[in-house]
Amino acid sequence: MQGRKDHELKDLSLLGNQETRYSFDYTPEVLETFDNKHVNRDYFVKFNCPEFTTLCPKTNQPDFGAVYISYIPSEKMVESKSLKLYLFSFRNHGDFHEDSMNIIMNDLIKLMKPRYIEVWGKFTPRGGISIDPYCNYGVPGTKYEQIADHRMMNHDLYPEKIDNR
Amino acid sequence: MQGRKDHELKDLSLLGNQETRYSFDYTPEVLETFDNKHVNRDYFVKFNCPEFTTLCPKTNQPDFGAVYISYIPSEKMVESKSLKLYLFSFRNHGDFHEDSMNIIMNDLIKLMKPRYIEVWGKFTPRGGISIDPYCNYGVPGTKYEQIADHRMMNHDLYPEKIDNR
Amino acid sequence: MQGRKDHELKDLSLLGNQETRYSFDYTPEVLETFDNKHVNRDYFVKFNCPEFTTLCPKTNQPDFGAVYISYIPSEKMVESKSLKLYLFSFRNHGDFHEDSMNIIMNDLIKLMKPRYIEVWGKFTPRGGISIDPYCNYGVPGTKYEQIADHRMMNHDLYPEKIDNR
Amino acid sequence: MQGRKDHELKDLSLLGNQETRYSFDYTPEVLETFDNKHVNRDYFVKFNCPEFTTLCPKTNQPDFGAVYISYIPSEKMVESKSLKLYLFSFRNHGDFHEDSMNIIMNDLIKLMKPRYIEVWGKFTPRGGISIDPYCNYGVPGTKYEQIADHRMMNHDLYPEKIDNR
Amino acid sequence: MQGRKDHELKDLSLLGNQETRYSFDYTPEVLETFDNKHVNRDYFVKFNCPEFTTLCPKTNQPDFGAVYISYIPSEKMVESKSLKLYLFSFRNHGDFHEDSMNIIMNDLIKLMKPRYIEVWGKFTPRGGISIDPYCNYGVPGTKYEQIADHRMMNHDLYPEKIDNR
Amino acid sequence: MQGRKDHELKDLSLLGNQETRYSFDYTPEVLETFDNKHVNRDYFVKFNCPEFTTLCPKTNQPDFGAVYISYIPSEKMVESKSLKLYLFSFRNHGDFHEDSMNIIMNDLIKLMKPRYIEVWGKFTPRGGISIDPYCNYGVPGTKYEQIADHRMMNHDLYPEKIDNR
Amino acid sequence: MQGRKDHELKDLSLLGNQETRYSFDYTPEVLETFDNKHVNRDYFVKFNCPEFTTLCPKTNQPDFGAVYISYIPSEKMVESKSLKLYLFSFRNHGDFHEDSMNIIMNDLIKLMKPRYIEVWGKFTPRGGISIDPYCNYGVPGTKYEQIADHRMMNHDLYPEKIDNR
Amino acid sequence: MQGRKDHELKDLSLLGNQETRYSFDYTPEVLETFDNKHVNRDYFVKFNCPEFTTLCPKTNQPDFGAVYISYIPSEKMVESKSLKLYLFSFRNHGDFHEDSMNIIMNDLIKLMKPRYIEVWGKFTPRGGISIDPYCNYGVPGTKYEQIADHRMMNHDLYPEKIDNR
Amino acid sequence: MQGRKDHELKDLSLLGNQETRYSFDYTPEVLETFDNKHVNRDYFVKFNCPEFTTLCPKTNQPDFGAVYISYIPSEKMVESKSLKLYLFSFRNHGDFHEDSMNIIMNDLIKLMKPRYIEVWGKFTPRGGISIDPYCNYGVPGTKYEQIADHRMMNHDLYPEKIDNR
Amino acid sequence: MQGRKDHELKDLSLLGNQETRYSFDYTPEVLETFDNKHVNRDYFVKFNCPEFTTLCPKTNQPDFGAVYISYIPSEKMVESKSLKLYLFSFRNHGDFHEDSMNIIMNDLIKLMKPRYIEVWGKFTPRGGISIDPYCNYGVPGTKYEQIADHRMMNHDLYPEKIDNR
Ligand SMILES: [Ca+2]
Ligand SMILES: [Ca+2]
Ligand SMILES: [Ca+2]
Ligand SMILES: [Ca+2]
Ligand SMILES: [Ca+2]
Ligand SMILES: [Ca+2]
Ligand SMILES: [Ca+2]
Ligand SMILES: [Ca+2]
Ligand SMILES: [Ca+2]
Ligand SMILES: [Ca+2]
Ligand SMILES: [Ca+2]
Ligand SMILES: [Ca+2]
Ligand SMILES: [Ca+2]
Ligand SMILES: [Ca+2]
Ligand SMILES: [Ca+2]
Ligand SMILES: [Ca+2]
Repeated sequence: MQGRKDHELKDLSLLGNQETRYSFDYTPEVLETFDNKHVNRDYFVKFNCPEFTTLCPKTNQPDFGAVYISYIPSEKMVESKSLKLYLFSFRNHGDFHEDSMNIIMNDLIKLMKPRYIEVWGKFTPRGGISIDPYCNYGVPGTKYEQIADHRMMNHDLYPEKIDNR
Repeated sequence: MQGRKDHELKDLSLLGNQETRYSFDYTPEVLETFDNKHVNRDYFVKFNCPEFTTLCPKTNQPDFGAVYISYIPSEKMVESKSLKLYLFSFRNHGDFHEDSMNIIMNDLIKLMKPRYIEVWGKFTPRGGISIDPYCNYGVPGTKYEQIADHRMMNHDLYPEKIDNR
Repeated sequence: MQGRKDHELKDLSLLGNQETRYSFDYTPEVLETFDNKHVNRDYFVKFNCPEFTTLCPKTNQPDFGAVYISYIPSEKMVESKSLKLYLFSFRNHGDFHEDSMNIIMNDLIKLMKPRYIEVWGKFTPRGGISIDPYCNYGVPGTKYEQIADHRMMNHDLYPEKIDNR
Repeated sequence: MQGRKDHELKDLSLLGNQETRYSFDYTPEVLETFDNKHVNRDYFVKFNCPEFTTLCPKTNQPDFGAVYISYIPSEKMVESKSLKLYLFSFRNHGDFHEDSMNIIMNDLIKLMKPRYIEVWGKFTPRGGISIDPYCNYGVPGTKYEQIADHRMMNHDLYPEKIDNR
Repeated sequence: MQGRKDHELKDLSLLGNQETRYSFDYTPEVLETFDNKHVNRDYFVKFNCPEFTTLCPKTNQPDFGAVYISYIPSEKMVESKSLKLYLFSFRNHGDFHEDSMNIIMNDLIKLMKPRYIEVWGKFTPRGGISIDPYCNYGVPGTKYEQIADHRMMNHDLYPEKIDNR
Repeated sequence: MQGRKDHELKDLSLLGNQETRYSFDYTPEVLETFDNKHVNRDYFVKFNCPEFTTLCPKTNQPDFGAVYISYIPSEKMVESKSLKLYLFSFRNHGDFHEDSMNIIMNDLIKLMKPRYIEVWGKFTPRGGISIDPYCNYGVPGTKYEQIADHRMMNHDLYPEKIDNR
Repeated sequence: MQGRKDHELKDLSLLGNQETRYSFDYTPEVLETFDNKHVNRDYFVKFNCPEFTTLCPKTNQPDFGAVYISYIPSEKMVESKSLKLYLFSFRNHGDFHEDSMNIIMNDLIKLMKPRYIEVWGKFTPRGGISIDPYCNYGVPGTKYEQIADHRMMNHDLYPEKIDNR
Repeated sequence: MQGRKDHELKDLSLLGNQETRYSFDYTPEVLETFDNKHVNRDYFVKFNCPEFTTLCPKTNQPDFGAVYISYIPSEKMVESKSLKLYLFSFRNHGDFHEDSMNIIMNDLIKLMKPRYIEVWGKFTPRGGISIDPYCNYGVPGTKYEQIADHRMMNHDLYPEKIDNR
Repeated sequence: MQGRKDHELKDLSLLGNQETRYSFDYTPEVLETFDNKHVNRDYFVKFNCPEFTTLCPKTNQPDFGAVYISYIPSEKMVESKSLKLYLFSFRNHGDFHEDSMNIIMNDLIKLMKPRYIEVWGKFTPRGGISIDPYCNYGVPGTKYEQIADHRMMNHDLYPEKIDNR
Repeated sequence: MQGRKDHELKDLSLLGNQETRYSFDYTPEVLETFDNKHVNRDYFVKFNCPEFTTLCPKTNQPDFGAVYISYIPSEKMVESKSLKLYLFSFRNHGDFHEDSMNIIMNDLIKLMKPRYIEVWGKFTPRGGISIDPYCNYGVPGTKYEQIADHRMMNHDLYPEKIDNR
């Protein structure tokens, strides 16, 4: 079986492009997709993004976190370099962590129309406390909505050990 | 999508306030909330609080623990700096660990009326034994009560390895 | 909410008592209880006891293990210092690990009449092999018996990595 | 409650015996049992055996692995020193890892007639790849068969991180 | 019980063969099988393959990952040295990670006709983000299809901590 | 060789004493010593104290840290329960971390006149940064002063990985 | 011994100040100091700063790293909140990692005139490779210069394991 | 080169002996030695003994620790089973940890007359503090005395992280 | 202090260049340098390269390893993207691990003429054994040659734990 | 620079040879060497061998350990496959761990005449105690003898944590 051919990659303007410009204001339009070649089956794709940073909306202080995004694709899949640029665009954006995780999920749902998706942020502490928001989504009225309910109910039964060091 | 605007933050008296006063007597009235902007969906918010300390009610000896709080918000969400001050207020308060975890959960239920909430404390040993209480709650008569039952039944099937070092 | 008051602690003869005497023969009568103030809800209490030692019933050789005890209280809760003394009383007692874990659970059921309880021992190796017994119990004919079945069925699907070092 | 008495141990010929002879050819007849004193309840016993070695059936090259054995006893329980000798007897025996794990389980089923049993081997790599076979069994037509199905379906959803170092 | 005999191994052309040639172009025909001697029971076999490398289809840059393959065999089982050679054949092959994991699973289904199979790739980051695809399969219309659905629904509820170091 | 006899322990007023009172204001006079029975040789004693807490001198906010104290005794040795009470007395005391580590060392030098001593504090972060002060001391004009210089010069060449989680 | 008094803290304009403004352009003038109260002895102070981020000078891509700063104070010591603001000011500054570590050390030497100082940056990978620069300094012509040479010679003999995950 | 012959092992009364009796009172006379066959060279032998337990001399409470013994042999070497029995004999013996480590070293010096020896105990906490004594010895007037000084001076520059869990 | 300016970066042809071509045959000429702006001081730069792969010179089998490169720069410093391309060029090159580490160091000495450099490779096992070569170099007749001797003498006194998993 | 050529590999009879025979009796003559191409410099080569097994000389019981071998080559270097076969030949050989480490070093000195060599064995426990012998050697009368003394003096100042699990 042959790998991805050039014509399958022709819509990807960012991957391998040296002229990449980095926006540090919230820029969802930078996201790009490519076609899912395995639509006949459900499978998961996870992105590990430990280099996420935003600003506190009230104090403007920088915050840092790791973001984990998992989804079951439908017809379209998000290209990873465009995802990187999208996440970079939160760099000088101010919002609560609970909000930014919901916004990321909303934008990816709009972009890819995935069967299922979840977004989990894990932030560094301020004043001795850290915050970890988790949201998910399945296409309403399908089994993917049941998957979302099931995964919410079983979410994080084993919180990782945190000692702020 | 724009971040939290000033008028959305105007009820938060503590975040970014330099005149913060720290009470070390149990003070639940310090807790503050802000509005949940994503009420249409269930999502989890977890607070990791490894800097929790109380006194033994009988010997007055200081005890130390990590507290993990997870909840699914309804209309209101607890602001993290006020939560920090609330947890600090246990510093010179004397109670059993089993009691303090239940009290924290009771206070947060009263404050936020969350759909679901759980509180897990993990304390350092005295005399070679350590104690880890875990309690949870879902709004009675809703699916969140079922979530509470499900999570209680599956709680901590894999106790972390403890060697007191 | 006030902490535990003196009259609530008056039956605890061991906590904070300097005249503690240590028995190293099996002594279940040393166990003491206090009242559960949160009987309206199910919650878990876990004791981590990594300093457990017995003797081999055939060779008299000392054995060492960690014992993890988790329970959902009913009316009574075991006081942790008395639990420490009880576990110390196995120090010069000879029995198989499979038996001692069952005996500990039997004694705590008799003492507290808990809704649910489980006991897991993890011992150091002899001759390159180590033994980890796990038993549990729910009040027969209640949902706690179902919890016991559920937790037995899902017990230890991920054995920790052991390399004897 | 008294520990195991001498007459309960009288059938154990190997435990504490200095004249132990080690066979390095497959020797299932070395296995010994003792009586289960807690037949009224289901409980798990796990053996951690990180010192397992066999030979490759085609190249005769030594292979090394850790074997984890968990079972719910019926009337009889395997004595751990005899289990050690049995596992040693694979030392100069040649077989595929997939086969040896099935053979160990077959022999222990024949010996103890357990309600439930599972055997998991985790071997070191050859040519950059390592093999981990897992098999299980529940008495057919009982709830233990359902336990076996349930545990097979949920087996190893989180493969441990392997980097060959 | 005797180990694998010579006639049972006679179709394995690669194991122990010094003349092995390594193809670095995608070569699924190198895969070989042997007979499953335990067809009467379901059991899992997992391969840990941390030395997997491909090329990016657009930039030709080398990528590195760990691949975990788990399956329940039917009549045939893949021989591990041939699997090694097959995975080596991706060395100079260009494809997206999401595609290569699906291709590996497709080839192994065609080869072995397993009852159940899953393939999980975990790659190193590019530009701060790493990608982990996971796919699975159960024979349609059998309980193994249900196992596949169940495992997809419960996949990776606890993403491992990634910090790119 | 016999263990410590009663007359050797008669000056210890705190060890095993049930009437212990806990001061949370800086109270160096609580420290007690016992005789070193091995004055003919140099040896190290280390105390690991992970339950240390103070207040920020400017904001009054609680801070948390682990303190490691190592010394080579001369004639006198600090009794560990009195050390515990002494460290507890910083609980409501306000000072910079750099100061409190120097004060602890000054007090122990005055108490024990040790040949050598070092004190290392490792605190949890505020605003994303944590502080770890380290001081040491050897009797001036002796080889212990050289040991102090040597250990300062070789101090912490391998800072532990800190990620604030 | 009393803690830091108000007049000792009066020059600190940032600690506890709610009106803090965050500059994201290189701003060394934000650094503040307080007096060293223990000038009679050498001691180390280490800052762990895992939330450091800059931009690549050629591509403008964000980079992330952990910075470890250790020094032996002379008369002045850097206040930690001002250090935080200083490090934040690299957020939108473009430079090579090798340069930024040298610049941080230069600025702190100019500010505090420490007896000894070292700065170690550990960055996340780009293209599979990560960079860790380390520089140090001792006052020329003093024993602190020798300490610098000694620590350079013994630097990082045990590189931490990096696998980019 | 042939392994140890029977006549070389004839003085070992305990190794492989089934009639072993375990004394739990301090019994140094149980120690046995065998001949060093490599006296022409210095080499280290380390014993890792994580199953050490004693009693507190004042309260009689059991204490637990790990003991690490390293030595350079001269003519005689301690046999490991006899060392095990010797360490077991502290089981019901009461002494301070600082004393017991010195006593173990004294007894092994008397037994083996080693060129160099060191003993390090690491105990579990009482009241939040744990104690780790370390002593060593080299034959006076030889280079081994210098080794002892060197190792004391460089002892434990990197205290392991302790969090009492 | 300003960051790297354009004219300082003008000789870097690869960084940020989208037309990068990857050679998989040994290609030392791909290496590029930039100027060291801190020549007045010694400092270390370390590259962590966990994605290194070569071929066995006799069997052509792929090998995998992590390479750690540390150096003290003189006038020139190697640019990291060119280093990445250089290391990629070993991909289809056949050599012993002991040779390839020496070759990498030779090429970097020729390129940068560093004051000091060391190269450490850590490979995955073949047949149960892994190989870790380490070489270093200091300019002959300078103190850097002494640094090289010192670091060789103190190399890897604490081999990391390897269990091939 | 070209890789190892065929004529440089012609004396290696085992590498890549399918007809390998495995001896399980002590067989030092199986060891083979190849030429060191970098004799102008000192460098270290380390072998990690976690799959080592022998028999107890008195009880015949199998023992297991990890062996770490590090050396600075002179003219000849040991080939790794032949080293594997040599270590396999201890499989059915009975000797004390202290002896087998010395024997391995003696044989490699005889084979390669290295400038420096060290051998460290780390075994699994018997009866709760594990043994770790370490020996080394430098050519007498050269600086390598001094390296041996230095490394012996600094050996294992930080014993790894052992808990027998
Ligand atoms: Ca803060
Ligand atoms: Ca942590
Ligand atoms: Ca622990
Ligand atoms: Ca044994
Ligand atoms: Ca282990
Ligand atoms: Ca191999
Ligand atoms: Ca690993
Ligand atoms: Ca990149
Ligand atoms: Ca990591
Ligand atoms: Ca951490
Ligand atoms: Ca890592
Ligand atoms: Ca205590
Ligand atoms: Ca710990
Ligand atoms: Ca490993
Ligand atoms: Ca034993
Ligand atoms: Ca361990």
